[in-house]
Amino acid sequence: MRRGEPRSEELDPRVARSLQTILHAALEELGDVGYGAFTIESVAARAGVGKSTIYRHWPSKLALIEGAFQTLHEQAAPDIVSGSPRERVERIVRHVAEVVAGKPFSSCIPALIDGAERNRDVRRFHHRFQREARKPLVAVIAMGVECGDFESHIDPELTAIALVGAIFYRRLMTNEPFRPGQAAELVATTFGVATRSRAR
Amino acid sequence: MRRGEPRSEELDPRVARSLQTILHAALEELGDVGYGAFTIESVAARAGVGKSTIYRHWPSKLALIEGAFQTLHEQAAPDIVSGSPRERVERIVRHVAEVVAGKPFSSCIPALIDGAERNRDVRRFHHRFQREARKPLVAVIAMGVECGDFESHIDPELTAIALVGAIFYRRLMTNEPFRPGQAAELVATTFGVATRSRAR
Repeated sequence: MRRGEPRSEELDPRVARSLQTILHAALEELGDVGYGAFTIESVAARAGVGKSTIYRHWPSKLALIEGAFQTLHEQAAPDIVSGSPRERVERIVRHVAEVVAGKPFSSCIPALIDGAERNRDVRRFHHRFQREARKPLVAVIAMGVECGDFESHIDPELTAIALVGAIFYRRLMTNEPFRPGQAAELVATTFGVATRSRAR
Repeated sequence: MRRGEPRSEELDPRVARSLQTILHAALEELGDVGYGAFTIESVAARAGVGKSTIYRHWPSKLALIEGAFQTLHEQAAPDIVSGSPRERVERIVRHVAEVVAGKPFSSCIPALIDGAERNRDVRRFHHRFQREARKPLVAVIAMGVECGDFESHIDPELTAIALVGAIFYRRLMTNEPFRPGQAAELVATTFGVATRSRAR
């Protein structure tokens, strides 16, 4: 069993819906009150279920939050197998911009950052989650460098953090969220305008 | 009078030292307890002064925090007038990495982000401060594009947020702070290895 996953194999559709409602309520609670003030009681009240229903699936508040992020992440995964490396990078960047700007993840980011600062277990989860989320982007950039679509000076890890860093920076340090429509522009300013056709 | 600046023109050196101690204590308090729990009383105790001494110079806790950031910013400004645009960009990036990794600013970032999320005045200050702090980098990149040192596809604003975004992302979302020594590498991966001598 992976972390944060409900302890059930085959879910009745009604049970599955109820678990979804709980996970959504957990993200809302986290965004509204922050990690410190987050309680299972309050999530239960938001979701209209008993506390014991939540504890049956997630033994702690961090397990519940992990479950919520994991589910959000799996449901929203973009297509990373079709198109050129550049198209894939643009698609991933647009996807990250949508997730970072959208409810309910957007309001959870400051809560998670502050929680990670004050609690070691939150920090471990937060860093692991981000590392996993970043992997496909790093892999696609590395593949683009490998096959000559991107110039050889491009460092996949540093470029990946510059791309997602721009999006998180806009969310956390400015009042202008990064618009998903700016994805191609950000990729162009980092990789050059039209990589293949450009004079080298 | 600018915001957050003490209401004094010519300061006695002992008074100036005392104000510095207060501003430093304010940053420590913010990093330790966050914006919500920050109190002037606690800053006064850390600095070994009376509350009235603080209120004489800063009318509110936000004014005190603004004063602390402003002073930190002015004291630490890097050289942005000598060298090529690329050297200046590298110098600014290295400087941002040092400030973001260093005490006392580093622990204040999550507190400020979370405070900005929950309080409109903190948000205004935080966004204004970041905008001002970013200006020299945007200007140097624009100058580099203008004079042909950087390729014309480079968007100064987007490139600036990709560079500082990478540094803040590493601080806030990973357990690997961006090392100031990686500044040249980050600039190279964004602008190309050796801009002038590179075949175009």
